[in-house]
Amino acid sequence: MTSEEDFFAPNTSKFITGARIDGTPQDIYIGRDGIIGAVGSDIAGEYRREADFLVDASGTIALPGLVNTHTHAAMTLLRGYADDMNLQEWLSEKIWPLEAHLTGNDVYWGTRLACLEMIRSGTIAFNDMYFFMDEAARATADAGIKGTFAHGFIDLGNDEKREAEIAATKELYAAVSTMNNPRLQVAVGPHAPYTVSPEGLEWCAGFSRDNDIGLHIHLAETEQEVSDCTRQHGMRPAALLDQCGCLTDRTVAAHCCWLNEDESRLIAERGVTVSHNPASNMKLAVGRAMPYHWLKDAGARVSLGTDGCSSNNNLDLIEEMKFAALLQKYAWNSSVLLPAHEALTLATSAGARALRTGGGVIAPGSAADIILLDTRTPSMVPLHNADSNIVYAASGAAVSTVFCNGTALMFEKVIPGEEDILIRAQECADDLVAQSSS
Amino acid sequence: MTSEEDFFAPNTSKFITGARIDGTPQDIYIGRDGIIGAVGSDIAGEYRREADFLVDASGTIALPGLVNTHTHAAMTLLRGYADDMNLQEWLSEKIWPLEAHLTGNDVYWGTRLACLEMIRSGTIAFNDMYFFMDEAARATADAGIKGTFAHGFIDLGNDEKREAEIAATKELYAAVSTMNNPRLQVAVGPHAPYTVSPEGLEWCAGFSRDNDIGLHIHLAETEQEVSDCTRQHGMRPAALLDQCGCLTDRTVAAHCCWLNEDESRLIAERGVTVSHNPASNMKLAVGRAMPYHWLKDAGARVSLGTDGCSSNNNLDLIEEMKFAALLQKYAWNSSVLLPAHEALTLATSAGARALRTGGGVIAPGSAADIILLDTRTPSMVPLHNADSNIVYAASGAAVSTVFCNGTALMFEKVIPGEEDILIRAQECADDLVAQSSS
Repeated sequence: MTSEEDFFAPNTSKFITGARIDGTPQDIYIGRDGIIGAVGSDIAGEYRREADFLVDASGTIALPGLVNTHTHAAMTLLRGYADDMNLQEWLSEKIWPLEAHLTGNDVYWGTRLACLEMIRSGTIAFNDMYFFMDEAARATADAGIKGTFAHGFIDLGNDEKREAEIAATKELYAAVSTMNNPRLQVAVGPHAPYTVSPEGLEWCAGFSRDNDIGLHIHLAETEQEVSDCTRQHGMRPAALLDQCGCLTDRTVAAHCCWLNEDESRLIAERGVTVSHNPASNMKLAVGRAMPYHWLKDAGARVSLGTDGCSSNNNLDLIEEMKFAALLQKYAWNSSVLLPAHEALTLATSAGARALRTGGGVIAPGSAADIILLDTRTPSMVPLHNADSNIVYAASGAAVSTVFCNGTALMFEKVIPGEEDILIRAQECADDLVAQSSS
Repeated sequence: MTSEEDFFAPNTSKFITGARIDGTPQDIYIGRDGIIGAVGSDIAGEYRREADFLVDASGTIALPGLVNTHTHAAMTLLRGYADDMNLQEWLSEKIWPLEAHLTGNDVYWGTRLACLEMIRSGTIAFNDMYFFMDEAARATADAGIKGTFAHGFIDLGNDEKREAEIAATKELYAAVSTMNNPRLQVAVGPHAPYTVSPEGLEWCAGFSRDNDIGLHIHLAETEQEVSDCTRQHGMRPAALLDQCGCLTDRTVAAHCCWLNEDESRLIAERGVTVSHNPASNMKLAVGRAMPYHWLKDAGARVSLGTDGCSSNNNLDLIEEMKFAALLQKYAWNSSVLLPAHEALTLATSAGARALRTGGGVIAPGSAADIILLDTRTPSMVPLHNADSNIVYAASGAAVSTVFCNGTALMFEKVIPGEEDILIRAQECADDLVAQSSS
């Protein structure tokens, strides 16, 4: 074992020993290529000596790294700036005036803060939509996790705006391609059916198809949005998106609270991944929970997202799993809906498939996106059922160690450079408030 | 500063410097009597030299210790043992068969585990109802926090059972009185209007009045309970309790999901404290959230509880505050209902008043029940609004240091003796499962 600094370096192999996987202590070998080479209780003979580093993981549970399929990462800077307000007042009096002063530097440090928070709570990939997304990509590259970045595309039916958004989307695609970092991807980000014209939606669908990249959109978050769409377009929002070519297996649709049964089946048929955001939906009082039972019955892909920090107000997917499992039970009046092991699937393999991270399972050939959760803490005792403890009793604070593509990003709660990021993010947040109130 | 062991000893005075209280860094002096002697930014001259220990609390927020007004502490042993089931099946196939094997020793270690978890997440007092409550009291005495213990009184209308429950209640009262520990109290615990006869309820009301002790009861958790009561007694459950003398300012009524507006006013008029248990109510799909808006409008006292670990599955009141603030908004369709600062009141001063802990505020003359939360962690940055960060972004893991009656129970995340308790509790849980499956 060499120095701590070396341990955090990429392209080193690791032998992780004694972590619980599916109920039994097993070992994991991670190759220098960041890929899981072997998993099992009998691999030590072949792989242990080969590894650059040995990680004693006894007393931990190993999980695939968590995947957040809907957030606005840099909104960490707005955490706690305005809560407990009516939506329109909140946006027009608080959020938008502050965002008007946002710079690329703010987005860089806000995203660094978000990545720090995600690493601390076990998230190794996220689906982002915001402004200055080249800066968000740069921050994520520096943080070491995986990000998919969409410029929030809003044309409000205006041709000039649409051309500008098309240019911005192409520019982001070029900028991130130039970074040539396999952890970074671009998605096209039509904001929502009510903020983007059918022409804009069609262009986005085409750009996603032609470049084989994701399409990230808000869908059916509020009842108002559904009734407005029906009045304006003569069809519900999912049908409108489908008509514009926006529903494919590259699509992540956030919220989906107000889908009806037919729309749930359409979402399933098209291979769309829904991103369930229960905490945000509850906080903003959207009036209905994503219909998990209809989506599940139809065979739809469902994943999990935190939404941005001004409507949640954290990025803790372990907490979000509990909100999901409990909100589904409460809202649809069934204590058996969305059991713990399904909630874990939403936050791991379903998200990894949607964002094409190469991970999502702990198995040979998969990207070594692995997190270790400490079981030697009161809320994880007794360990009758690990899935239940993780979903219902733990929080993100249970995560002790994080690997992304085999690189250690946090080891036994230590993240190199954390303090400096906290200071810089706080400064950006303070400056934003000072500017918006001057 | 002397050794660490001395620091955890009772009856030592402390000077806590630089913790944020209501937005500004202040100092707190705790006397050897466990009472707060002074609070402010200008008290160092008078008190700093007097203190046995100096605690550097810069970078923390000080809050009154949290108070959990409804739990079944020893059910920590059942954490994760059975989830995601229908209520009747869950009780009859899983919970009751396991509980049939419970011993006093199990309740001791289950309660020690619960106290450990509560201390870790900032809770310094709780309202307990279960079996072998003398053992629960002994465990709490050893753990150092404050407990109010009720024997779960269930007569099912049977005279013989009622006499046995009366005897058990008197016995517990005598046993805990003998312990002569000011941190321990007894309450009378009529389980619920549907499990205790009017005669039993009347006896409980009298015992509470005559001994000036609390009365701890489940009320209106499910719709079924309300309709059954109306059919059987010709009145709703709150009216029945009132007729039996059970609604007073010594009463804590847990759940109260299905109160109507009239009942909410009655609860307020009688000075009853409601214990809101949002996570449990969601997980068990009770179909309705406690009507906070009606209770608030009527001026009722509302506090917060976690319920037991088999229906939550943790004892983290910081997480529970978020569930409360979000469930109220979602269930009653209002994004302004139960704002962050009110959620904090529920978990601190409202609970402290209900359980008569002597604490609940950070002010001279109050019991020194104080917790320190670390702000140097990503989810607490930026610090636009401390209340919002605590309620919406933090979890119990933010708590670093805990004082109860001035005695340090956790200091910078360290709790002396923690590991042994985790091992003993796990053993008890394993034995219970082995017995119930043999």
